[in-house]
Amino acid sequence: MTRSSYSMLSVEEALEVTLAQTKPLAPEHRSLAMVRGAILAADIAAQEPLPPFPASTMDGYAVVAADGPGDYPLVGEVSAGALAEFSVEPGTVAYITTGAPLPAGADAVVMVEETERLEMGAGAPLVRIKERLQAGTNVRPIGIDVQAGQTVLAAGERLDAAEVGLLATAGFVDIPVFPRPKVAVLSTGDELVEPGEPLGPGQIRDSNRAMLVAAIYAAGGEPIDLGISGDTQEALEARVQDGLARADILLTSGGVSMGELDLVKPLLEHAGTVHFGRVRMKPGKPVTFATADVEGGRRLVFGLPGNPVSSLVTFYLFVVPALRKMAGWKEPGLRQVQARLAQPLPLDAYRPEYHRATLRWDDGQACFVASSTGIQASSRLLSMRTANALLALPQREGVLAAGECVEALLIGEI
Amino acid sequence: MTRSSYSMLSVEEALEVTLAQTKPLAPEHRSLAMVRGAILAADIAAQEPLPPFPASTMDGYAVVAADGPGDYPLVGEVSAGALAEFSVEPGTVAYITTGAPLPAGADAVVMVEETERLEMGAGAPLVRIKERLQAGTNVRPIGIDVQAGQTVLAAGERLDAAEVGLLATAGFVDIPVFPRPKVAVLSTGDELVEPGEPLGPGQIRDSNRAMLVAAIYAAGGEPIDLGISGDTQEALEARVQDGLARADILLTSGGVSMGELDLVKPLLEHAGTVHFGRVRMKPGKPVTFATADVEGGRRLVFGLPGNPVSSLVTFYLFVVPALRKMAGWKEPGLRQVQARLAQPLPLDAYRPEYHRATLRWDDGQACFVASSTGIQASSRLLSMRTANALLALPQREGVLAAGECVEALLIGEI
Repeated sequence: MTRSSYSMLSVEEALEVTLAQTKPLAPEHRSLAMVRGAILAADIAAQEPLPPFPASTMDGYAVVAADGPGDYPLVGEVSAGALAEFSVEPGTVAYITTGAPLPAGADAVVMVEETERLEMGAGAPLVRIKERLQAGTNVRPIGIDVQAGQTVLAAGERLDAAEVGLLATAGFVDIPVFPRPKVAVLSTGDELVEPGEPLGPGQIRDSNRAMLVAAIYAAGGEPIDLGISGDTQEALEARVQDGLARADILLTSGGVSMGELDLVKPLLEHAGTVHFGRVRMKPGKPVTFATADVEGGRRLVFGLPGNPVSSLVTFYLFVVPALRKMAGWKEPGLRQVQARLAQPLPLDAYRPEYHRATLRWDDGQACFVASSTGIQASSRLLSMRTANALLALPQREGVLAAGECVEALLIGEI
Repeated sequence: MTRSSYSMLSVEEALEVTLAQTKPLAPEHRSLAMVRGAILAADIAAQEPLPPFPASTMDGYAVVAADGPGDYPLVGEVSAGALAEFSVEPGTVAYITTGAPLPAGADAVVMVEETERLEMGAGAPLVRIKERLQAGTNVRPIGIDVQAGQTVLAAGERLDAAEVGLLATAGFVDIPVFPRPKVAVLSTGDELVEPGEPLGPGQIRDSNRAMLVAAIYAAGGEPIDLGISGDTQEALEARVQDGLARADILLTSGGVSMGELDLVKPLLEHAGTVHFGRVRMKPGKPVTFATADVEGGRRLVFGLPGNPVSSLVTFYLFVVPALRKMAGWKEPGLRQVQARLAQPLPLDAYRPEYHRATLRWDDGQACFVASSTGIQASSRLLSMRTANALLALPQREGVLAAGECVEALLIGEI
């Protein structure tokens, strides 16, 4: 297949093709400490009710509510973590702390502020109860928060802090989740040197690999750094095979535009199936997507453009949804909101543009306001600095005026 | 100081007191691979221009623009990563690939599609140039993306993927950043058992510690797990001193309400200075904040309530901003948006309520819609499940109608 034979897909078509080739990874079990951020692969039902016993919500006195106000002998104390070895008969009270199990016989708790301890010379001390209350007051009955057998978390839910707490509450410490996809990153180009090395004549530093590794972490993947490959067929092929063996997704950066030394597309045609090689978008037109079947299963391969902005924009638009689908997300697409333009933006007559912008919520206007990051050259990584959204600008001539509303795809925190 | 002597602060007052006691940590240097998510502690200026040489943006032929269309002898080839050892005199052309340095003498690049290679019998091959273009066409001049000495990142900026790419571009691999705050977590209560252990009589599982550890990670902190402490003064004091020695922030969970066995507040009064011990909010009223000066500096201590919802809500409202300020954030508060209620919500006449809700962007209404997570009991952790916002409901009688707009504090991804 020659380069010109790739038909030009729209972004929507390309994303559909990508996700159609992407399957969730096989679920695995992880310990409670390792599931943060993962997607649950099975429903979780509580084994016991919560609370598992009627529990006091106050420090005070366990009473028989029907007794009402009066002075009553103290028959014992019960604190959290132990059951009382006595019962509260009508006409008696017991001291109880927050979270402690209600002693047998008692049916309510009077908060300590509504009582008075009467010190007597001998015998059981008396407690003055000043309040009349109904049975059940200040008591959490068995199962009020969670019933035994109740589904506390459903397959497909993301495990953030509260969900981790619910797993702990339910006593689950070995949890079925979708694993984090392994994503290998390979930079290509004889001109590239590592960021820490001095620049020789004609050289530039490889910014894309460190950038993509950071983006993979942020997207919930586990990066594998394959280094820089020179522009020879042999060097490239060996690294690609290494990546396919070790990762679920392989990203190459550079080498996909139209030159004689752009070896990535022919290599992917040889190693697997290329599904698209051009997309109608700005930046990112040469982005390429292939699959390869290797021992261990089907791999996704994205040939990302070498320009750093094109590389990161196509990462967000295609790789992030694929990565999320592999990681078990039910709705893997980038979150979308609307935003008002802070300044007029020129449109492109030939391609939809993904304009980098910083969104801020404006309380007065009750909407997001999008500020452009400036000159949008695909080599100008400064146009991604502080950007948390890609504005999906329509393909047409002219200018969008300040104040107009556009769709914004979220790529960072707002 | 006895418990009743704590005056009741508003949430705003309590947050102000907290942040007034909080200072950014001392900056440290980290390698490029370790700075993701951190806040930069110094401006970063580019040492060289980008590109460092005039670079072709196309595969094609380097020409002298003034020559115009015609057939010209090919004097050489130059690809990315090396300087040409020849120059392009008027009336000659050289093959060039994307990203390669423009040879001396050339001032533009004709894209390969606008040329034709004429194969000749002997001598230098001829190249037909079909296009007339201006000097500078398809060439990125030196410094067009970044000028030497230009500030590419400023102190206080967060290092996400694009910013990591900019650091790599600028050749910075040893970067001054604010470190991740170390946050120690201690659960208190004789009734608590580890999530993996069977429940004995009167016992419940400790959900808060695993939950808070996950929340600390998500907030950019480095958690230290101090385990569960029983309800004795000695046990608690030893763990607290351990936490103060090892962490920047110490969180205790439980033991701050009003019972005889609630030892945390007296302990903090002994170990340091308690700044507040009650806040007018629902849930979370008993939340306590103290500072302690130990060898190694000033520590922040938060006594979080034992009810899981109260614990997590107060973590988001007070600990997250403090943690972010320590980590160098200039605007450490939770991000705030407005949202329309999906259903009517009852108000509390005595305390502002932080109602847990799931926000979703509604394209039709062009706003966020907030769905309540249901019954808001502070022991019901299910009310935090899938919640990504806390709705700040005003303290007053009555009900907010569906469709009304409220302030929402973001606690998760939208």
